[in-house]
Amino acid sequence: MLRKPTRDEKSHPVDDDLLTRIDAWWRAANYLSVGQIYLLDNPLLRVPLRAEHIKPRLLGHWGTSPGQNFLYAHLNRAIVQRDLDMIYIAGPGHGGPSLVSAAWLDGTYGEIYAHVGDDESGLRELFRQFSFPGGVPSHVAPETPGSIHEGGELGYALSHAYGAAFDNPGLTVAAVIGDGEAETGPLATAWHSNKFLNPVTDGTVLPILHLNGYKIANPAVLARIPRAELEALMVGYGHTPYWFDGGFDEEEPLDVHRRFATLLDEVLDHIEAIRAEAADGGRPGHRPAWPMIVFRTPKGWTGPREVDGQQVENTYRSHQVPMNAVRGNEEYTRLLESWMRSYRPEELFDDAGRLRADLRELSPSGPRRMSANPHSNGGVLTRDLMLPDFRKRAVDVPVPGGSVAEPARVLGQWLADVVRANPTNFRVFGPDETASNRLSATVDVAGKTWMGEILDVDTDLSPSGRVMEMLSEHQCQGWLEGYLLTGRHGLFNCYEAFIHIIDAMFNQHAKWLKVCREIPWRAPIPSLNYLLSSHVWRQDHNGFSHQDPGFIDHVVNKKADVIRVYLPPDANTLLSTYDHCLRSRDYVNVVVAGKQPGPQWLTMDEAIAHCTRGIGIWGWASTDDGSGDPDVVLACAGDVPTLETLAAVDLLRSELPDLRVRVINVVDLMRLQDEREHPHGLPEREFDALFTTDKPVVFAYHGYPWLIHRLTYRHTNHDNIHVRGYKEEGTTTTPFDMVMLNDLDRYHLVMDVIDRVPGLGSRQAALRQRMADARLRARQHTREHGTDIPEVADWAWPAARELGLPGSSGDDTAADFEAAGPVKGDRTSG
Amino acid sequence: MLRKPTRDEKSHPVDDDLLTRIDAWWRAANYLSVGQIYLLDNPLLRVPLRAEHIKPRLLGHWGTSPGQNFLYAHLNRAIVQRDLDMIYIAGPGHGGPSLVSAAWLDGTYGEIYAHVGDDESGLRELFRQFSFPGGVPSHVAPETPGSIHEGGELGYALSHAYGAAFDNPGLTVAAVIGDGEAETGPLATAWHSNKFLNPVTDGTVLPILHLNGYKIANPAVLARIPRAELEALMVGYGHTPYWFDGGFDEEEPLDVHRRFATLLDEVLDHIEAIRAEAADGGRPGHRPAWPMIVFRTPKGWTGPREVDGQQVENTYRSHQVPMNAVRGNEEYTRLLESWMRSYRPEELFDDAGRLRADLRELSPSGPRRMSANPHSNGGVLTRDLMLPDFRKRAVDVPVPGGSVAEPARVLGQWLADVVRANPTNFRVFGPDETASNRLSATVDVAGKTWMGEILDVDTDLSPSGRVMEMLSEHQCQGWLEGYLLTGRHGLFNCYEAFIHIIDAMFNQHAKWLKVCREIPWRAPIPSLNYLLSSHVWRQDHNGFSHQDPGFIDHVVNKKADVIRVYLPPDANTLLSTYDHCLRSRDYVNVVVAGKQPGPQWLTMDEAIAHCTRGIGIWGWASTDDGSGDPDVVLACAGDVPTLETLAAVDLLRSELPDLRVRVINVVDLMRLQDEREHPHGLPEREFDALFTTDKPVVFAYHGYPWLIHRLTYRHTNHDNIHVRGYKEEGTTTTPFDMVMLNDLDRYHLVMDVIDRVPGLGSRQAALRQRMADARLRARQHTREHGTDIPEVADWAWPAARELGLPGSSGDDTAADFEAAGPVKGDRTSG
Repeated sequence: MLRKPTRDEKSHPVDDDLLTRIDAWWRAANYLSVGQIYLLDNPLLRVPLRAEHIKPRLLGHWGTSPGQNFLYAHLNRAIVQRDLDMIYIAGPGHGGPSLVSAAWLDGTYGEIYAHVGDDESGLRELFRQFSFPGGVPSHVAPETPGSIHEGGELGYALSHAYGAAFDNPGLTVAAVIGDGEAETGPLATAWHSNKFLNPVTDGTVLPILHLNGYKIANPAVLARIPRAELEALMVGYGHTPYWFDGGFDEEEPLDVHRRFATLLDEVLDHIEAIRAEAADGGRPGHRPAWPMIVFRTPKGWTGPREVDGQQVENTYRSHQVPMNAVRGNEEYTRLLESWMRSYRPEELFDDAGRLRADLRELSPSGPRRMSANPHSNGGVLTRDLMLPDFRKRAVDVPVPGGSVAEPARVLGQWLADVVRANPTNFRVFGPDETASNRLSATVDVAGKTWMGEILDVDTDLSPSGRVMEMLSEHQCQGWLEGYLLTGRHGLFNCYEAFIHIIDAMFNQHAKWLKVCREIPWRAPIPSLNYLLSSHVWRQDHNGFSHQDPGFIDHVVNKKADVIRVYLPPDANTLLSTYDHCLRSRDYVNVVVAGKQPGPQWLTMDEAIAHCTRGIGIWGWASTDDGSGDPDVVLACAGDVPTLETLAAVDLLRSELPDLRVRVINVVDLMRLQDEREHPHGLPEREFDALFTTDKPVVFAYHGYPWLIHRLTYRHTNHDNIHVRGYKEEGTTTTPFDMVMLNDLDRYHLVMDVIDRVPGLGSRQAALRQRMADARLRARQHTREHGTDIPEVADWAWPAARELGLPGSSGDDTAADFEAAGPVKGDRTSG
Repeated sequence: MLRKPTRDEKSHPVDDDLLTRIDAWWRAANYLSVGQIYLLDNPLLRVPLRAEHIKPRLLGHWGTSPGQNFLYAHLNRAIVQRDLDMIYIAGPGHGGPSLVSAAWLDGTYGEIYAHVGDDESGLRELFRQFSFPGGVPSHVAPETPGSIHEGGELGYALSHAYGAAFDNPGLTVAAVIGDGEAETGPLATAWHSNKFLNPVTDGTVLPILHLNGYKIANPAVLARIPRAELEALMVGYGHTPYWFDGGFDEEEPLDVHRRFATLLDEVLDHIEAIRAEAADGGRPGHRPAWPMIVFRTPKGWTGPREVDGQQVENTYRSHQVPMNAVRGNEEYTRLLESWMRSYRPEELFDDAGRLRADLRELSPSGPRRMSANPHSNGGVLTRDLMLPDFRKRAVDVPVPGGSVAEPARVLGQWLADVVRANPTNFRVFGPDETASNRLSATVDVAGKTWMGEILDVDTDLSPSGRVMEMLSEHQCQGWLEGYLLTGRHGLFNCYEAFIHIIDAMFNQHAKWLKVCREIPWRAPIPSLNYLLSSHVWRQDHNGFSHQDPGFIDHVVNKKADVIRVYLPPDANTLLSTYDHCLRSRDYVNVVVAGKQPGPQWLTMDEAIAHCTRGIGIWGWASTDDGSGDPDVVLACAGDVPTLETLAAVDLLRSELPDLRVRVINVVDLMRLQDEREHPHGLPEREFDALFTTDKPVVFAYHGYPWLIHRLTYRHTNHDNIHVRGYKEEGTTTTPFDMVMLNDLDRYHLVMDVIDRVPGLGSRQAALRQRMADARLRARQHTREHGTDIPEVADWAWPAARELGLPGSSGDDTAADFEAAGPVKGDRTSG
């Protein structure tokens, strides 16, 4: 619950003694930051610096560190005085020395890493390990206590901060944004996150725009626009900007600290006032203009002013290492020493090398330390989801193919149950596609989050919505990452083609997870779950630009430990798959499943069994007499490929009734790999038992064909596997036209089979001709009528056909907003 | 040159007759937009609408179309009256019906597509073909005359617009931005492009924010913030906003048109004033606040107000198709008919179905039509680059490995020559990494573009710079795409790992190129060239998050016709490769080459020959007696793998002097494919001649290993190819530690060889042990000293060693800003 300040705290003065100690703490942090970049030994400069004390390779980033150290020192003060529950996001996370220094000064570092203790030997190790082989990365990383934010690719500090704040009403997230980072697109739109933050049930985000003026080699855009323009920009983003300039003249350090302390108190009072007003019911229709700080200080503040006659402080030249190749360079060595001594280490550390006790007291205690706040190791706070029984949402499947459903809509109904059962730790994210992806049931529970103006015409908008929609894949991904990293659960639903927008973000998160798994103190966090439901095969309203199944390939490049890919063929398998995903930890689960009406194959019991295996023979569809010896294997992964495969089997049954056909369906794509490659991989003999060691395999696959080759590469029968998949062909068409354009259609699959099965004799040529004719007829029908030929559109699996049940009914053109309506929903009941 | 308006034009009134005709033109465009979505036949409603006139599948997007039609009509008026050279970027390009309608009304459509002529039969075809099998896409696409901007993924309208405007001083780019698109990150930062536009030498961008209030299923964020906030946001972005509201009440259409015409004239006058002032020298240090228009109109304006009792106009329900399943629904059919008749087609088209003559006159003539403007088919304007002789920048290589150079820096010197020789049609783009990527010589020519404040401390900033740097990969890619699509040349330099940020943009551009190649009237445009120089193997200042070579994999998924991937092993091959890339058309060229000092292998003549072949045996490195029969093939692709391979060969020479080793180097990765898969693919017998049909091949590769398997999959000797590549291991380390972590090091390669070559007997175990020991020693040295062991760091190829020439010198830690300096540059001379 939101804690209100008492009068006592409010009146607590930031007196000169405290300011003096804050300044000392800041000097200590700066000293440690420099030491990490430069020193191998002699950490307290007990003797004059010599070559052997200096690292031979100087790596790291100084420029952002002193500004961040300053902020950290002052935030510590506020946390203690106001008992704030606060975490710190270092947008300029390449300033690793800063956050590592802070964690060491907080005492957290030595608690976690005993060999980097709080005395001189710990200090030596702290310096040595930084950006050193076998040591710690130069950037903020999973190894850094207190971080949920990798200091690699820039742009996501603010999205992560908001993700952390959602549903954490007691939490304040200080989000430092570099002025370089501020130029990225994701960051530029992330400011609008404040339209989605509920001041009662969510926490607080305090954006601090660190305007230090320079990037690697250029001035920053926002540092070179007139102050009035930047002010307008922040106001336009919906904030109340507070300006701070420090370090540009010879102002006394204490005065600088006093001014900032006063400003920070003002800002925090403003935040408290906003939250208090909101808790009292707020002003209807009024969104608060949350404070943000423009923190303007020199890049490389307190560092060398000049090196080799060139200005360094307050220029881009202080971005990384101000003087390079110091070892063996006497002039540089003396410059480095005097720079480090300028922080007066003798005043900061005691004889044992420990931080002076009165400075140690500046850090908050225990979990209030930003470096030890449990929200920054979110797994420790994770509560399991209450998962309602997904079986209750099962689609009734009297016989295979005997009912029609929209899998994503069925899933949506169960996800709505999940939302209902977990009102404060589960959210659904999507870039304005949740209705289009037919998950609207999730919206029906509590609406979509919206703190802006709500009009009569609006449906489902609410300040307390559990579905988050903004037309920015970056924002959705960033919010969700922040939400997961602080221990909560969620999923991201997105068009398959456009999920590539966050390829790089996925990379960073997957790498984060990979490293976390190797760090004992990092508790597992809920998995990052994708649902790609508007997929490559059904872009009826759209076209070629909306088709790309390559995200799967991108994902499979990452470490097998952390990635999972599922292609459930129908609604019941999708339900079972997603139940599994929401229970998992530390994975990235990619689930691709269509939203259009399609035939349903498995009862819920069958679906659960099938998903448990991840891959299996569909005996009811096979004609190889169970364990018998098939003439050919037809394998499929993905809903459309499954439909076409079964239709091909149907054709084969009537055309070649004596052909022994085995049908294999793959839900868990990683099952195809060798067990040495992926934890889900099949042992060789199990793969052989499924795919045989010598029979032709025709594999219909959702994505780019070669991935199947890559996955099955080590297996015995690999050379006999022939894959049909997406080929980068085709613009807007009908569903069957699309599969025909990519040669994945039933007729093509039959031709693939008869081209590979020996001994068909004259039947081969005749059947080939019939298939080619059927294909041509289908093509002509499509081009003439704009719809699929009835024999395809109304095709039903024999068992369903016999009962007179509906066909595949894939010809659905529902507009994306209509798709949300209740009428269509009824179709899921079969 | 910029054309100044004459007094006559300025005073030209927009009289009621003209406004009446503009309104009629608008009605015609709306009529055609609806017709395309709904009708198969009866295009002029000569008989009452019946089921067979209506498409069975209704696909497309109505919502954005009427607003865009309105804008197009008014821009046409301004073009005619002011003789503007203008192109139109449809940010909401899913409104394909709008742009296709406009092109048809302009007469352009029928000129290009004779079967869609300007009469009733053409009209029937126009309607029928839209989003119909065998027809045209529902989105703006390469098939759409006048477009350089695919209507697929949102976010790039403004970046494309600026890219088109750069170096086109006579051009005005009207950039319509949807309020949905405005939520994306790339668009949110693209507003800042105005800080990079020179008002004298560049053209004009007129952003029009189309605030129609709704996305697919939600209100738009910018439509629901207070007007004062949006005003501040636009001012903060550096613009002068002009507001227009139209269509929300019962205002007379003529009044609406009159107000907008007046506002547009004001805006265009303002633009002329800015340009005139700039042409006269401008105000020093003053960046103009260019006008932009906030164009607020109802979504689905003029469409059905209500369907089934639900409001449709001015809600998200008009996003796609307002009434679905119209065919066979009598009520909907009548609603559709009355909707279409509300545009009074009988007043718009003559008996033959042609647009009335006095309305046709509203379109500009010939190339002034936005649908026929040559800038929108940029290839027709492309001038070849004047390419200075790259041989003059050759690195002297007395013997293989006999000199050390930084390849990217050498390339930078030649690129500087290119900048100098092509001062108005070649630009270099990079996200603040051009210096870090060591291309600073390009900056030295004319600086980096910067229209903001310039301080004394700044180096190389200039309003007329030819290098464009903003810390947004999206912006760089979008600018470059716009620049290329309008016929100019350029390259994008980027860290390899972060190029994934634009994976989705690459997709869209590659798909655009693929389709353009099939459209006869689309002239080839200069290729999209990447230089990924801070690559996965050398992230000394950074770490794990900066390592990902998967962009190559992503690229290879696209059509072979349009993609090329090069991995030049040294500076001379890089020069030759880039010369080739800058001459090419309609490709995406991905070039990966390091920036750190490394040994140079080939003289320029050898490099040219090697690049021409793309793959080849390095006889000087091989010990298989030329055409002889090798015992083993060592193949390599990429600079680091080449170095390690040659070091392994060196070890093998001394350890197993009788082993016949063949060394193959691959520059053009696509040469590895089968000729049926890629135009650069090798015929089977050529591949066999290189790689043998049965000998072991140890392949050291820059990226993820399995891509080599994918590419060589069809080749005879494939099963004997063993690949070493990047494995997702390792954080900040020394160069050799990095290759050891990923098992790509020389010792590992030797072990791979001896594990595969038969007949080594007892020598195998002993050699294995020596390699393992050497590896362990190297590892220990790194961990102890933080540098690579001298036997590795100073290793030189035997020929260089004999001459006492320098070794591989890979241990370079230059900070990114220092790397720009002249001192290091000297090293390139060897």
